[in-house]
Amino acid sequence: MPAISKKGISMPASPIRKLVPYADAAKKRGTKVYHLNIGQPDLETPKAFWDKLAHMDMKVLSYCPSDGFASYREKFSQYYNNIGIKVAPSDFIITNGGSEALLFAMMSCIDEGEEVIIPEPMYANYIGFAASGNIKVRPIPCKIENGFALPPISEFEKLIDTHTKAILICNPNNPTGYLYSREELETLRLLVLKYDLYLFVDEVYREFIYGDKQHFSALNLESVDQNVVVIDSISKRFSACGARIGAIVTRNKEVLGAAMKFAQARLSPPSLGQIAGESLFDLGADYYGGVKREYQHRRDLMVSLLNEIPGVNCPMPGGAFYAVAQLPVDDADVFCQWMLEHFSHGGATVMMAPASGFYATEGKGKNEVRIAYVLNETDLRKAIECLKVGLKQYQLLNETSKMKTELV
Amino acid sequence: MPAISKKGISMPASPIRKLVPYADAAKKRGTKVYHLNIGQPDLETPKAFWDKLAHMDMKVLSYCPSDGFASYREKFSQYYNNIGIKVAPSDFIITNGGSEALLFAMMSCIDEGEEVIIPEPMYANYIGFAASGNIKVRPIPCKIENGFALPPISEFEKLIDTHTKAILICNPNNPTGYLYSREELETLRLLVLKYDLYLFVDEVYREFIYGDKQHFSALNLESVDQNVVVIDSISKRFSACGARIGAIVTRNKEVLGAAMKFAQARLSPPSLGQIAGESLFDLGADYYGGVKREYQHRRDLMVSLLNEIPGVNCPMPGGAFYAVAQLPVDDADVFCQWMLEHFSHGGATVMMAPASGFYATEGKGKNEVRIAYVLNETDLRKAIECLKVGLKQYQLLNETSKMKTELV
Repeated sequence: MPAISKKGISMPASPIRKLVPYADAAKKRGTKVYHLNIGQPDLETPKAFWDKLAHMDMKVLSYCPSDGFASYREKFSQYYNNIGIKVAPSDFIITNGGSEALLFAMMSCIDEGEEVIIPEPMYANYIGFAASGNIKVRPIPCKIENGFALPPISEFEKLIDTHTKAILICNPNNPTGYLYSREELETLRLLVLKYDLYLFVDEVYREFIYGDKQHFSALNLESVDQNVVVIDSISKRFSACGARIGAIVTRNKEVLGAAMKFAQARLSPPSLGQIAGESLFDLGADYYGGVKREYQHRRDLMVSLLNEIPGVNCPMPGGAFYAVAQLPVDDADVFCQWMLEHFSHGGATVMMAPASGFYATEGKGKNEVRIAYVLNETDLRKAIECLKVGLKQYQLLNETSKMKTELV
Repeated sequence: MPAISKKGISMPASPIRKLVPYADAAKKRGTKVYHLNIGQPDLETPKAFWDKLAHMDMKVLSYCPSDGFASYREKFSQYYNNIGIKVAPSDFIITNGGSEALLFAMMSCIDEGEEVIIPEPMYANYIGFAASGNIKVRPIPCKIENGFALPPISEFEKLIDTHTKAILICNPNNPTGYLYSREELETLRLLVLKYDLYLFVDEVYREFIYGDKQHFSALNLESVDQNVVVIDSISKRFSACGARIGAIVTRNKEVLGAAMKFAQARLSPPSLGQIAGESLFDLGADYYGGVKREYQHRRDLMVSLLNEIPGVNCPMPGGAFYAVAQLPVDDADVFCQWMLEHFSHGGATVMMAPASGFYATEGKGKNEVRIAYVLNETDLRKAIECLKVGLKQYQLLNETSKMKTELV
């Protein structure tokens, strides 16, 4: 049998999805699984989306332009203009979800063996995309003690050398929910100018900012038009993950030109998601406000419930719908699998994403999990209760087995 | 400004799409453009697809499993079983079009610097996908004189060395329309067994076989389950290119395992295209028969009209909806652009794909074009008439300018 590629072997499995077979088995046994593992919003996809699908006036579902429908890019750029970001329809390439946008950005800007600096914990698939292009990830450790804030600029400078091509952040952050401030972005701005680097910013959670904080887009940084490449998507903003519609947004025409060649090779992004998705840009403050209120309520509830559990530490996130929590366990990978394989409470269990997969540094985040608050209040309460009972059982079990080992 | 990656620079532009700006300009001038450049079927997407979209009973458009909906893979495998190919739903990974299927197959099986042998002319984007993974394409020249048949096996063996990981064919072929016989596939079977190679076969045009010939799937070759990886898609079969739903089909579990990690990194293929696409597998012989009759009629018409033009040579394709034709010009890239920029006949012109982009060997195919017969009879006749008049004008123009040069 011919060998699998080295890349295929070294490619990491998704920490968000690798436990799916255990969850499926639990469901088969009749156990209800609360999914806190994946950023799949439970809020309804707006009605306008379904209405458009119900009234498609087409005969042939054809390819669209490789950079997406012109009308979609037009609407999308209007949404940007409305929130105070000046971009033109020609500054966009529409992609198969934010995932492909990031992949195209990396491939267009970074060669094999070159490096990208990313604060960790980081969105796990950044590691996967880098691996698929043989790009080296240089992680910058963020600390749970200060809520995963941007590390001091001196830490970045320590890592920058001739191989460094880009800094990548997610703002607000997946998995930590940390919202980078304008000041932090200005710091990064100086850094990418000084060292002539790309600044990739994943802003797919831009509309999910809580309290009185404001999101500051990297596209509004001064004099770094040639450095800044923003990743966007309608998946989270409009609960439309299955549409698979994302975008690269940049004023750098060379990056767009290179990305367009990758885009042409795969012909086009999905047509249906764009056609129905166009209608979503007409939604106004009412929609965003409602969604925000709901997530903020859940955040407050979840973080307080989590921190009530003995041994659990969960900083308050500023945005997105994730939090990273420290659990009183040695190995969250083992614990998360155990929760699916061997535990249930009132006929239910909880699926979480072990945080180890969100660290590029081997061995870090072993006692952390990423939790997505994408359940309604009732389910969220039940899920956290499940986690609480599960943790207690697991600790007892471990103590018992330790005692047994000591007795033998 | 930070530099573009070497990969981004060397990535080829799509020969199918690179002339789009000239076509757009022609349309802006009011010129009708007959698109023979792209495999975008004009036949209607079946009604069942639109009906399903009109009656979506969903609240949240969520991600689907990374390998696609189980129900879709079930239906898809039934379609395979019905045409005599024994595969299980677990032998599929559903992808963002056939494009992503090929990309995942390459990345899972072939490392940077390793090689894939492909008969040329070849589907242009194979070159693009290989470039994006720094995989070397070793072309095997096919000859227009024998209708682009599979070259003798000795030609393959000349290219095989320790770097060779796979042979890739498209059957029936894009761009030539050539249908590989069962005997040719058996030859390849022996070869991949002898040298322990993967055999990638792109079978997206499987249902478009004309005359009394039969398609033989590589999945029905004996004792090469671990070598054969088939690429499939609903794009052409059901005129649903914009759905972006393809698949990897293989019984090799290690390849599926590696591909699944790439699939998880991009989360999931489009949900809408699968949900509506599932209905298409219920279409029977009536549907396929009707589509086939239409394309066969066009093929016969187009090839005969093309061969009537002085200096044009177009072999008769056995399947798909493409043909490669030799034109009486020095440089088809220049000619195709000229047709869009400077020519019109009765208010119309023709867009074709210059064949040079379908050759990995620099300088080959300079006087060839790929033509897709995806227009109805009336338009196809007008398009070929346009080409005929265009060719005549272009030749006259060239002769005149040559005379002028000689006089100077």
